[in-house]
Amino acid sequence: MLQSQARLDRVLVRVQDLTAEKAGQLLWVRARIHTSRAKGKQCFLVLRQQQFNVQALVAVGDRASKQMVKFAANITKESIVDVEGVVRKVEQKIESCTQQDVELHIERIFVVSQAEPRLPLQLEDAVRPEGEGDEEGRATVNQDTRLDNRVIDLRTTTSQAIFRLQSGVCQLFRDTLTSKGFVEIQTPKIISAASEGGANVFTVSYFKTSAYLAQSPQLYKQMCICADFDKVFCVGPVFRAEDSNTHRHLTEFVGLDIEMTFNYHYHEVVESIADTMVQIFKGLRDRYEWVQMQFFFTEPGFQCLCPTLRLEYWEAVAMLRQAGVEMGDEDDLSTPNEKLLGRLVKEKYDTDFYVLDKYPLAVRPFYTMPDPSNPKYSNSYDMFMRGEEILSGAQRVHDAELLTERALHHNIDLEKIKAYIDSFRFGAPPHAGGGIGLERVTMLYLGLHNVRQTSMFPRDPKRLTP
Amino acid sequence: MLQSQARLDRVLVRVQDLTAEKAGQLLWVRARIHTSRAKGKQCFLVLRQQQFNVQALVAVGDRASKQMVKFAANITKESIVDVEGVVRKVEQKIESCTQQDVELHIERIFVVSQAEPRLPLQLEDAVRPEGEGDEEGRATVNQDTRLDNRVIDLRTTTSQAIFRLQSGVCQLFRDTLTSKGFVEIQTPKIISAASEGGANVFTVSYFKTSAYLAQSPQLYKQMCICADFDKVFCVGPVFRAEDSNTHRHLTEFVGLDIEMTFNYHYHEVVESIADTMVQIFKGLRDRYEWVQMQFFFTEPGFQCLCPTLRLEYWEAVAMLRQAGVEMGDEDDLSTPNEKLLGRLVKEKYDTDFYVLDKYPLAVRPFYTMPDPSNPKYSNSYDMFMRGEEILSGAQRVHDAELLTERALHHNIDLEKIKAYIDSFRFGAPPHAGGGIGLERVTMLYLGLHNVRQTSMFPRDPKRLTP
Repeated sequence: MLQSQARLDRVLVRVQDLTAEKAGQLLWVRARIHTSRAKGKQCFLVLRQQQFNVQALVAVGDRASKQMVKFAANITKESIVDVEGVVRKVEQKIESCTQQDVELHIERIFVVSQAEPRLPLQLEDAVRPEGEGDEEGRATVNQDTRLDNRVIDLRTTTSQAIFRLQSGVCQLFRDTLTSKGFVEIQTPKIISAASEGGANVFTVSYFKTSAYLAQSPQLYKQMCICADFDKVFCVGPVFRAEDSNTHRHLTEFVGLDIEMTFNYHYHEVVESIADTMVQIFKGLRDRYEWVQMQFFFTEPGFQCLCPTLRLEYWEAVAMLRQAGVEMGDEDDLSTPNEKLLGRLVKEKYDTDFYVLDKYPLAVRPFYTMPDPSNPKYSNSYDMFMRGEEILSGAQRVHDAELLTERALHHNIDLEKIKAYIDSFRFGAPPHAGGGIGLERVTMLYLGLHNVRQTSMFPRDPKRLTP
Repeated sequence: MLQSQARLDRVLVRVQDLTAEKAGQLLWVRARIHTSRAKGKQCFLVLRQQQFNVQALVAVGDRASKQMVKFAANITKESIVDVEGVVRKVEQKIESCTQQDVELHIERIFVVSQAEPRLPLQLEDAVRPEGEGDEEGRATVNQDTRLDNRVIDLRTTTSQAIFRLQSGVCQLFRDTLTSKGFVEIQTPKIISAASEGGANVFTVSYFKTSAYLAQSPQLYKQMCICADFDKVFCVGPVFRAEDSNTHRHLTEFVGLDIEMTFNYHYHEVVESIADTMVQIFKGLRDRYEWVQMQFFFTEPGFQCLCPTLRLEYWEAVAMLRQAGVEMGDEDDLSTPNEKLLGRLVKEKYDTDFYVLDKYPLAVRPFYTMPDPSNPKYSNSYDMFMRGEEILSGAQRVHDAELLTERALHHNIDLEKIKAYIDSFRFGAPPHAGGGIGLERVTMLYLGLHNVRQTSMFPRDPKRLTP
């Protein structure tokens, strides 16, 4: 066991750097045994390091004994090994490996960490989308088995791709906003009152009293606006005690939140958020080409327009009615209608991303600013990717009196949101914002079908482990 | 009330941009009334925007009536106003404002959001450190009043400075690690078992069962290492149900966590983390000069050495004993001894940042790798700023058998950490890491004395609001 006994001054070369330019060099590599196949006096290995792999060979001869070949052949799959070998160019490209031009001729091999022989699932099966393998008679792994053995499942090229891209979504979100002058804030997750309505909230035992888990940073990011931080964002967990077992609901997910003051019209904020999303899409497209190669086989990838398409709610209702849907002017969009609308928009405008503006006031939270000319509507908007909602936002009421009136209208206990309402009593600038679900953005950008694929350790009403 | 009635095409100039170069220009500014003083036919205002402020003047004359001066004089402090005025150079620098070379001669003034006349605290009192005002007969505001009215307190230059710098700590942490090849991960906060020992954990009602709030992302970030993410970091809330009412304990704080594989020796990781901290200190020094001007009056600021000083535990014990402290070789450091050691190190080496390596195994968590040559010690370390611990870390046990043995030795229920221990059964690379408390880093970098100053909405056993 490697216990930091000594600090070797040996260089380990990364698998992705094993290219034809290194031909002839003797070097050390640390990697996993991806596959292993003994054949007479030879043993062929595929060595894997994250999303990269290379073919390697141990053959009886000058530098390797029969014992060594046998030893190599017996190392269990997924074990981590240190190998010393010579890089050799190959005549025919090795199509099954990422390093197609070379193979490694092993002269020494040590086991760094041995895997148990029975793996709970096979990586090559896990990488196949559910359903696809069946037709060709090949095994797939069902989602629960994959999630139960998530550490193995996360090693697949698919998972490596998903979560490296997701890391990029967060980075692009923050970098874009930072360059626009935003300040990052940290808001508390343990709160004293179920402030955003009361339902769907988890209760926490807090010393001798009870507390709750925040359903969003909404009230706190607005308080930061009242505290002169002007433009703020935060990235952090949000909690929903909703007993929904769907492809797109989690009880804990990562919220990317934005709140900013504006000068005269909340469309200043809509444009800023939409531009942030477009910067994220562009950044992903440019930086994660290899990830997209894993997912976008037949499709042209994720399409968006510049400037972003903005439709008003009444227009959406008209489009849906034309497609045969019966709904009232002030009805909320059902999930099937959301998806249908996405298809209609895609057909008409050829975009996978758009903003739906001017929602009916009745279907929005109490802190939403009513429309100035038609009190049935509001200064609020959702944003959609591939026909599914990824952001919900609005201009917020910044006047304590109107906010009190709206909270009472929604039957909210004023005592529980006193600190929040009081924040608007000492001068509050007009402001708007929105909250984005990280896992949904990753899922929809890549065209995946279940949000559990884009949460490393997903939480739903039935899953709390690993 | 500004309800987005129309999208004016008026430019608002920022207070920080009101400089001598703009002299003679008629322009619009939106800002708060910081102070207001009527004097005959004139009214002097100080207009504030975040940490910037400028003097403004309304005087009876061609462009302003007597009524307008009276109107301006009656606007409550902290109200937000839109003013149109001409920038005029002043002969004598205005020492009390950040914009010292100009004042604004107001021609039009509108109230955007009116503050209630009685403020719960005065900003000029809140900015004075507690205790300091008393001597000079000036008011200060006690910490509870400030925290009870946090939205007002956060508007002070002190708070604006603290939280803008804190935003920089997060940014520098992530940017440094991203450039070193780290991937950002998101770990669950709701967990099924009190996995890290059992005490000090908050319980959550989870549908028909119970769950817990994660005390750190420790087990999950290690599972990501076993899942081939190689080098990972995360930034997120951590929860400690500890009934400690000290200057440096919170029940919820922000953890900056790192975990990475290494080749041969955990010192590779120690060096990488120490370098990350140094990059943060350098970045703060270069980017936040104005913040440091608020805090470093007499002192030279935060000092660190390059390379970072690394002491071993036995050396620290020897230094403390020489200073008269009685302690055993394997005793843990008490808080007073930590601080004393910090002073001794500062005297001897002139650094505010150092690493203490090779802690006794007995005082560290079960997943800590024992020292290979002396089983009483371990491959673990803490990092200190101004004599207070900000990071705790170690090489972790990456062998399932040894990990089981260590967990049993610590009386940990194996059933509760089954998924964690199983992660090491299918090949696990040697790895090490550490966790940093964000609020402590900000507090100690700026030389503050209470961690509640560096948490926007602090949570402790007695405080859950706002």
